[in-house]
Amino acid sequence: MSKTIHSVASVPQTREDLVRSLVGGERRFHELPKDLSPEEAAEIRRQALEEITQTPLENIAHHSLDVVRASHRNCENFIGVAQIPMGVVGPLRVRGKYADGDFYVPLATTEAALVASTNRGCAAIREAGGAVVRVEDVGMTRAPVFRTSGIIQTQQFLQWIQDHEDDLRRLTESTSRHLKFLEVRPYAFGTTVFLRFRFDSGDAMGMNMVTIACDRAVNELIEPATGVPCVALSGNYCVDKKPAAINWQEGRGKRIYAEVLLEAPTLHRYLKTTARDLAEVQYRKNLLGSIAAGSMGFNAHYANVLAAFFIATGQDPAHVVEGSLGITCIEPRGPDSVFASIFMPDVPLGAVGGGTALDTQREALAVLGVSPDPERRGEATLRLAEILGAVVLAGELSLMAAFTSQDLARAHEKLGRGELPSRPMPT
Amino acid sequence: MSKTIHSVASVPQTREDLVRSLVGGERRFHELPKDLSPEEAAEIRRQALEEITQTPLENIAHHSLDVVRASHRNCENFIGVAQIPMGVVGPLRVRGKYADGDFYVPLATTEAALVASTNRGCAAIREAGGAVVRVEDVGMTRAPVFRTSGIIQTQQFLQWIQDHEDDLRRLTESTSRHLKFLEVRPYAFGTTVFLRFRFDSGDAMGMNMVTIACDRAVNELIEPATGVPCVALSGNYCVDKKPAAINWQEGRGKRIYAEVLLEAPTLHRYLKTTARDLAEVQYRKNLLGSIAAGSMGFNAHYANVLAAFFIATGQDPAHVVEGSLGITCIEPRGPDSVFASIFMPDVPLGAVGGGTALDTQREALAVLGVSPDPERRGEATLRLAEILGAVVLAGELSLMAAFTSQDLARAHEKLGRGELPSRPMPT
Amino acid sequence: MSKTIHSVASVPQTREDLVRSLVGGERRFHELPKDLSPEEAAEIRRQALEEITQTPLENIAHHSLDVVRASHRNCENFIGVAQIPMGVVGPLRVRGKYADGDFYVPLATTEAALVASTNRGCAAIREAGGAVVRVEDVGMTRAPVFRTSGIIQTQQFLQWIQDHEDDLRRLTESTSRHLKFLEVRPYAFGTTVFLRFRFDSGDAMGMNMVTIACDRAVNELIEPATGVPCVALSGNYCVDKKPAAINWQEGRGKRIYAEVLLEAPTLHRYLKTTARDLAEVQYRKNLLGSIAAGSMGFNAHYANVLAAFFIATGQDPAHVVEGSLGITCIEPRGPDSVFASIFMPDVPLGAVGGGTALDTQREALAVLGVSPDPERRGEATLRLAEILGAVVLAGELSLMAAFTSQDLARAHEKLGRGELPSRPMPT
Amino acid sequence: MSKTIHSVASVPQTREDLVRSLVGGERRFHELPKDLSPEEAAEIRRQALEEITQTPLENIAHHSLDVVRASHRNCENFIGVAQIPMGVVGPLRVRGKYADGDFYVPLATTEAALVASTNRGCAAIREAGGAVVRVEDVGMTRAPVFRTSGIIQTQQFLQWIQDHEDDLRRLTESTSRHLKFLEVRPYAFGTTVFLRFRFDSGDAMGMNMVTIACDRAVNELIEPATGVPCVALSGNYCVDKKPAAINWQEGRGKRIYAEVLLEAPTLHRYLKTTARDLAEVQYRKNLLGSIAAGSMGFNAHYANVLAAFFIATGQDPAHVVEGSLGITCIEPRGPDSVFASIFMPDVPLGAVGGGTALDTQREALAVLGVSPDPERRGEATLRLAEILGAVVLAGELSLMAAFTSQDLARAHEKLGRGELPSRPMPT
Repeated sequence: MSKTIHSVASVPQTREDLVRSLVGGERRFHELPKDLSPEEAAEIRRQALEEITQTPLENIAHHSLDVVRASHRNCENFIGVAQIPMGVVGPLRVRGKYADGDFYVPLATTEAALVASTNRGCAAIREAGGAVVRVEDVGMTRAPVFRTSGIIQTQQFLQWIQDHEDDLRRLTESTSRHLKFLEVRPYAFGTTVFLRFRFDSGDAMGMNMVTIACDRAVNELIEPATGVPCVALSGNYCVDKKPAAINWQEGRGKRIYAEVLLEAPTLHRYLKTTARDLAEVQYRKNLLGSIAAGSMGFNAHYANVLAAFFIATGQDPAHVVEGSLGITCIEPRGPDSVFASIFMPDVPLGAVGGGTALDTQREALAVLGVSPDPERRGEATLRLAEILGAVVLAGELSLMAAFTSQDLARAHEKLGRGELPSRPMPT
Repeated sequence: MSKTIHSVASVPQTREDLVRSLVGGERRFHELPKDLSPEEAAEIRRQALEEITQTPLENIAHHSLDVVRASHRNCENFIGVAQIPMGVVGPLRVRGKYADGDFYVPLATTEAALVASTNRGCAAIREAGGAVVRVEDVGMTRAPVFRTSGIIQTQQFLQWIQDHEDDLRRLTESTSRHLKFLEVRPYAFGTTVFLRFRFDSGDAMGMNMVTIACDRAVNELIEPATGVPCVALSGNYCVDKKPAAINWQEGRGKRIYAEVLLEAPTLHRYLKTTARDLAEVQYRKNLLGSIAAGSMGFNAHYANVLAAFFIATGQDPAHVVEGSLGITCIEPRGPDSVFASIFMPDVPLGAVGGGTALDTQREALAVLGVSPDPERRGEATLRLAEILGAVVLAGELSLMAAFTSQDLARAHEKLGRGELPSRPMPT
Repeated sequence: MSKTIHSVASVPQTREDLVRSLVGGERRFHELPKDLSPEEAAEIRRQALEEITQTPLENIAHHSLDVVRASHRNCENFIGVAQIPMGVVGPLRVRGKYADGDFYVPLATTEAALVASTNRGCAAIREAGGAVVRVEDVGMTRAPVFRTSGIIQTQQFLQWIQDHEDDLRRLTESTSRHLKFLEVRPYAFGTTVFLRFRFDSGDAMGMNMVTIACDRAVNELIEPATGVPCVALSGNYCVDKKPAAINWQEGRGKRIYAEVLLEAPTLHRYLKTTARDLAEVQYRKNLLGSIAAGSMGFNAHYANVLAAFFIATGQDPAHVVEGSLGITCIEPRGPDSVFASIFMPDVPLGAVGGGTALDTQREALAVLGVSPDPERRGEATLRLAEILGAVVLAGELSLMAAFTSQDLARAHEKLGRGELPSRPMPT
Repeated sequence: MSKTIHSVASVPQTREDLVRSLVGGERRFHELPKDLSPEEAAEIRRQALEEITQTPLENIAHHSLDVVRASHRNCENFIGVAQIPMGVVGPLRVRGKYADGDFYVPLATTEAALVASTNRGCAAIREAGGAVVRVEDVGMTRAPVFRTSGIIQTQQFLQWIQDHEDDLRRLTESTSRHLKFLEVRPYAFGTTVFLRFRFDSGDAMGMNMVTIACDRAVNELIEPATGVPCVALSGNYCVDKKPAAINWQEGRGKRIYAEVLLEAPTLHRYLKTTARDLAEVQYRKNLLGSIAAGSMGFNAHYANVLAAFFIATGQDPAHVVEGSLGITCIEPRGPDSVFASIFMPDVPLGAVGGGTALDTQREALAVLGVSPDPERRGEATLRLAEILGAVVLAGELSLMAAFTSQDLARAHEKLGRGELPSRPMPT
């Protein structure tokens, strides 16, 4: 408890001294001596925080993470962990190109009923023979913003960019062997030019490597050659972690499609609903309701399932913002069946990097059989995306059905004894 | 390891039998005997999952949560936890009405640099005397959707709703002593009517209690009295966990404002930037870039800070979607200073319920001094919201400054030796 | 041709001299002597323009407008008119509260087929017994923008506004006997505050009188009392002649609903279509297509009919922008019928002022029986709005049907001989 | 007045008989005998309408249009014209590639002050040496919508489209010598596929020829070869006459840029304003106001000038909807000057077809020197677009300045005697 620690300035300090200095404010939490082990630093910060706030942090302290990795690669001023309950749904039958079979899917959530409800959707999909899933690897984007003197310089600048696409490709691809240059898409007006770079980043979500590549392109090639200054390496035309039309139109990360045909017995047994009621809720809620609300999410709750999946598998939870966009369709087929689909145009996702190497997250990925293979670049993440598509579909089906069976059913019971007005069903 | 467990059907089964039945698929993960303790059930599921997927789950198993609570109130089919690294920033000086003083703020994230960067923003705010923060408690919403026969019935229906507001208030408030009825806002066209109910839910985020209240209002009052059927209890005009204009205009949860005046020395010392450069990035990125992108987020990265704060404090991470909306302003004041502000119109937040009672999250809330007091209804959450506002502001300042100091500075170095074109600064 | 004209400076000038001075550039087109009659001034400008551009303008010269009125109240630097072809559709059976009966509707357009197509829609509506139409008079809005020192002053300012609503009402209503104050709706963030004033402007579209009222309120009351400066009398939160979520949510001008139930024989005889095909086009085009496009218009072509109606009846054609917003619904009823409706939340409209007093426009209004009656304030414009709703519905029905009968029918012919895949109809 | 007319059925009918039959409702307005001359038919319809509605239509009757053309190519059930007052602004100095010089621009409007205000903007631009204008010819679009059985058929379908682009080009270009195929852009989800065809249509606005080309492509190539049915030839992903993100991102028609640098003396003399005030209004109104409103128009009033220009020159006034989108920038340059620009991404425009051949509109085009030349395909319309860009810029400058000089100035007067709080200018 009082072993001697050597500070940067080589003045031996006891752990207690360091805690005191944090508590007293002489030292900030990020100013602990560099030669402390990450574990020691975490303990010192925690102890100081406990004293300052008079709060025992024993649960936050309770974890099994590799602190060296976590504190260096994921979280500065590390003091411990938030523990997020993890449940499992499945088996979920996925009929993708990279994920083809039955999967148990770990979901980390604090929202009661989410796991149970999604699990019910998995059962319905399983009964229906599985969800067909396809994924397009749109690629990761970053859009530096530049300042010109006006339209004439802008046009010259864009011409230069177009003429030097090969140079841009060479330079950016040289910054990482995982990166493939795909495109530069410009947008310009007044004195402002955005260049939306798009890259295939293989199994990585790619935000960081793409930023580095753009930085090099801007600083070593574009600015020196054109004299047009870059104002910010990210000009919000990328656009990261904000809902936006550009990502809806052009995609970002993975673009995911999943679908299933549900027949009457499955609807009845697993979802306690009918084709007609499901289609009615789809029409009034996912279509008209989102239209009325001016929403960019024409779905019931992609964000819920996404957040639970993202936290379990080490994705960036702020990307749930982008993943909340998309369109659920539920269409009658024949008299009693429905075709149900989800469409997510903007899902950043990775099987390496970020939180994926953390100990619990790595286990969750292993449960899904997701492990990058250099021989099969990008396929681990495509597999992850396909499973995600199927589980989001499961979540949609179950919640949509809940609205019909709980609410419409009840409505029918209570109102329906003959006196229900003839129903002008849209379906 | 092989102790006898009594199943629902009173047939004694060993734990090993149960694992076998899960592995073999005879039993689903949610079908374990009810008389198993939650801990036992978790172990059995985990063991089965390990066998099925050939994946050791020892880290997921490593936690200190109260399993009874977690598995009943947060996460079905519980198998353990995702551990999310937690760091701390601060002290952050907050000048709110409910949070007034210096705070250390726990953030749970897997994104390298986020904590360090936000911490830098905290230092700048501290140096500037603190962030002024104000919060409006807009209230939680839920919007059932109804089907009428057309405009004439719709108008009668809406007239009925208007005439019975007192009845709706009485009934909905009777469903929870935490709930105060605020408003019903209708939106109607064709044969569809949305009623957006809005409630003050005190210290709870409120989604669940509001849903229950609406359910009662619909089923006991509105449908019986009007004969107009409710199609779904949530008609997406609420709108939950999707970006939407209605929430932008009307607000949802808390509407948060935070601001600070930064003078040249603070900008220079803590943020390595100048007023001019910050304002330039603000203009091209947060305003023009988001306009070009068709985004609803006119900010740098609210979602990042929000996600880390939400996970640490037990909020619903899917609500990051709504919290990503908003407008950052950075405006020159005098020759060398800037006024910086954030505005978040749509932040669902709670100090009780959901994930806030989990062991690590409870500790994080305690670090912030957030603990509900029945005598001061709603104030714990308002305090939480004020701290959130200040930390989001810190995150914005630091990232915005990073663009100027790293990128503009470098641009200046490389291009700037006299040949930089005269800068048409927007500021 | 060379009669003497007395200029402002009392130096007699011949008409020829004035033309010369315009042609030579010594005098601008708006600098003709004030004592010229409007007709003479128009002739002089036209003659000069003919010489300058070597273009005979005999058709532009050919009109029957009261030049005094047109040049003073509608169009400076008057040189003549644009002649827009006017056709008539009907009889259109309207079942509104203010327009109840059969109407012939003049439409001024240059787009071939628009009148014929809309006329077909009128026939279908007539056969179906007429369109039920209802209109809400939302009122006209104007939103000055103010600058404060930050959130604290903003909250004080908004409190002041709330406390002085009666004063604001009194002052604004004193500026015109046609104006009724309805509401001030604030929106604020950073150092910016918008106050969206909303007024009932009776039979006038109201933009001008509302602007004058706001000007008085700002300059005589708000600024002097609060010291908070108004930056612009219109802060684009009004919002005039731009598509915007705020108008979608809150409405502006008139909010119009029209609907009709069409049975199989009517669909077949007048629209050459079926319920199933119409509903299919509605689903893929008006709902999914507009969702995919990120559009605010979930309709086929409100703007076309609106533009033709607006030009014929003297409305402001730039308001077509706002009128293009809205939602068409076409829903199956029973096996062979459809319920069709239009919804326009944002239609500025007037029966007095603007272009309504021009000679041809006045005649078009008279054809519709629209003439303001001081005893029945606002009703003339409500009548106009109801007729507009019905004719827009007619236009939608006909165009939507055209897609099905021309295109689907052809598709059926060519593909349909047995080998058409079973149709996954959304309906 | 009672000369004998031969009806289709060869039964001689007097004009009076025909009027009677219209008035009595035995005959609809579009059912007059085909052998009537268009003039006679117009007179008969007008006379009937006068009787039915007891309204003299002498002004509507007063016109100089070629009735044969107008009634066949522009407006069915022709009865006369709406006369829209036309004024002229200028000279406007345009520095484009196709329009380089001084122009007088005819504007047809009923909104008082629009011409005078725009004229003031022209003076400021003239004084500043002219507006630099550039136009990109994005092309006209049409997006048929198709129905597939799901993602697998969709992918096959899109692959087919991609593989047959040359065939699509050949077929579509064969439908008109004015058409050049540019691109097919797909958007797909669920069972729905949109193909957004884009064509260069030369001097024509192109909507009709593009529709015909798509019809041929769909019916002769795509449907027969793929078996995938087209649900509607326009699937609203085009998107015509509705505000939409896709057009913002991808452009439609012409994409127009115009800009000017205004120095202090010009600002003072012509616009009665200062750089600082203009930039302040720009910031609070065009940027923050439109952001707050959820608008797609970040400008003061493009739609006003556009509507007046469109009506004068025979454009489709419903396209004002699309033209209302765009971004005005006003940025300080040095201490006292501003750089001002407009950007319109979505302006359908033509120099032939539609209303451009009408007699008054033809004259207005001639005033602008716009006349298509087969040798210089598309250049007449590009010239028209450049002039439009400059005049829209003139309109913006003048209105923006009006806000500052009238309102800010007055505010300054009344409040400003020393007690105005130090202004936190954004500029």
